[in-house]
Amino acid sequence: MTTAEAIARRRAVAKEADRLPSPYLLFLGDVDDPRFAKTAFGLKDWAPERCVGEWASTTGGLSVGLPAMRPAQAHAAGARSLLIGVANIGGVVPDAWIAPILEALEAGLDVVAGLHVRLGDVPELRDAAERCGRRLVDVRVPPPGLPIATGRRRSGKRLLTVGTDCALGKKYTALAIARALATRGLAADFRATGQTGIMIAGGGIPMDAVVSDFEAGAAELLSPDAHPGHWDVIEGQGSLFHPAYAAVSLGLLHGSQPDVLVVCHEVGRTEILGYPGFAVPAIEEAIALNLRLGRLTNPAVRCGGISLNTSGLDAAAADALLASEGERLGLPVADPIRGGPTFERLVDACLGSA
Amino acid sequence: MTTAEAIARRRAVAKEADRLPSPYLLFLGDVDDPRFAKTAFGLKDWAPERCVGEWASTTGGLSVGLPAMRPAQAHAAGARSLLIGVANIGGVVPDAWIAPILEALEAGLDVVAGLHVRLGDVPELRDAAERCGRRLVDVRVPPPGLPIATGRRRSGKRLLTVGTDCALGKKYTALAIARALATRGLAADFRATGQTGIMIAGGGIPMDAVVSDFEAGAAELLSPDAHPGHWDVIEGQGSLFHPAYAAVSLGLLHGSQPDVLVVCHEVGRTEILGYPGFAVPAIEEAIALNLRLGRLTNPAVRCGGISLNTSGLDAAAADALLASEGERLGLPVADPIRGGPTFERLVDACLGSA
Repeated sequence: MTTAEAIARRRAVAKEADRLPSPYLLFLGDVDDPRFAKTAFGLKDWAPERCVGEWASTTGGLSVGLPAMRPAQAHAAGARSLLIGVANIGGVVPDAWIAPILEALEAGLDVVAGLHVRLGDVPELRDAAERCGRRLVDVRVPPPGLPIATGRRRSGKRLLTVGTDCALGKKYTALAIARALATRGLAADFRATGQTGIMIAGGGIPMDAVVSDFEAGAAELLSPDAHPGHWDVIEGQGSLFHPAYAAVSLGLLHGSQPDVLVVCHEVGRTEILGYPGFAVPAIEEAIALNLRLGRLTNPAVRCGGISLNTSGLDAAAADALLASEGERLGLPVADPIRGGPTFERLVDACLGSA
Repeated sequence: MTTAEAIARRRAVAKEADRLPSPYLLFLGDVDDPRFAKTAFGLKDWAPERCVGEWASTTGGLSVGLPAMRPAQAHAAGARSLLIGVANIGGVVPDAWIAPILEALEAGLDVVAGLHVRLGDVPELRDAAERCGRRLVDVRVPPPGLPIATGRRRSGKRLLTVGTDCALGKKYTALAIARALATRGLAADFRATGQTGIMIAGGGIPMDAVVSDFEAGAAELLSPDAHPGHWDVIEGQGSLFHPAYAAVSLGLLHGSQPDVLVVCHEVGRTEILGYPGFAVPAIEEAIALNLRLGRLTNPAVRCGGISLNTSGLDAAAADALLASEGERLGLPVADPIRGGPTFERLVDACLGSA
């Protein structure tokens, strides 16, 4: 392969990674418990511009507050896909969803999902999609043709959220920082690495589904060269301290070559979720190890501050803890869900203007 | 899934990982340059008991010193597969190999390969295999159904070779140590993680082809519970200091939960192969980082010593360097290819009897 061919191939793969047909009609199915509709709520909160409406297939079901419409109406309003915004139980496509999905395909919408099963494995849906000339897009499937990492330094700035464990706020923190940068008028992109994030961003790479040889290469592709003032804010995955997922975290760290790390931690979590006996590291230890390993591909990497998930505390206790932890660590410590001046100081520090 | 089901599934996957049909007839094709026959030479050196003969499809071609025979004769002598022991150029199955492979399938042999293309993608071979009821086995394909790592400590002892870079002796070192342990009458298995190693061992998992979420889980499967005196000697992959492959190395390190690490290094190599500007770390740094990260899943992990590839030195210079490096590092330093008392001392130290 010549260099020109290699570059063309990388561009093609990168384009494939930015591939979700939007705007969306959010499908809420027959779900009535909001805990099973986190994806739909996430989209409404973080990507309202990608959502033209919502569709509950039963009356009196859930709403995320968008205009209710059926597929034909949504298509006329500009929607390009039906996005499955609710989780299914049991790892199958529920029977009650088949007719609505068929209606969407026939109305000219693609279907976007990240279920445990692939929509294309349901013969009825696969046949209908083929007949209608529509796509069934699974956000858990990485784009084909991912490259091996080169380690080459790219232009533009990058921030990566990393964690002391899984499921404690890395996605939320990255989204909040990307939004804060945009609010300040800076050029910034949220770069998604998991399925909900990919739906919000309209593209991305599901890093945990990438073959390990290509893990760092996929991360390189995810945040390509950009102009010097541009920020990519990259959603972290897993934790270097996780006995199952550290490989995902390290490949993402190396390929992202971040300039700035934000370490995410949850107050009171002492053990890795689902791994009794594995301690959550001290924040200082997480900073030190991520910096040490991150220096391989970006010797100038620094820690911009700490994102502390204080959801278990009341407002006064949270404020006191954010202040005392900031003092103790000598870094800005904020809870992006609470926002406010402490969070703005964290953003300042990430930008190097603290 | 119940615990019993999970255990049964793990056993089934583990069995699938130990899946190569042997003994082999080594296929040398029409190759006459020994540099393209490293796999065949490796098998002859490390697994002669798995090889009944060799077959060059041209007369006057290469020999690895095994009895020459054709497929029917090999089948009668007990062979169960034709193993492609030579590398192909250009990423295709050469036309000149088709007829010999067909002859093997018709003689009742499966075919084992690790080429850049899958044999099953060649319609003529796929059809013939189906017709003859034979398998085309690709050692680059991981077994299906790999589990997420649990982090649970397993019984038995484990040694993992790790490196300051790729391609400097991790496989050779693991093979030499496994053989030395067997020679001493200890129960030891070489656990293969790359394609040549898998052919030698008759099974294993190609760790670089595993989806990153399952990387540590695959490594757990590769070295299952064993009796307390048993040693698994695990072939390392990549390097924690490699900008593309560190994720593979870290997942393998965590899942292997080694008791002992042997750090492999090549004298005179200063840059990561193919990655100009990326320095090969000092041996001390490689020891420290592997121990630090290895402690997550085995707090008692220790470094047994250093395997130094001295192939660029003459015997006197090599001996002097092994001695001075041993002094400097305070650890046994040996070159397994040179063997001798220094290597036996390295093995002693790995066993904890130094």
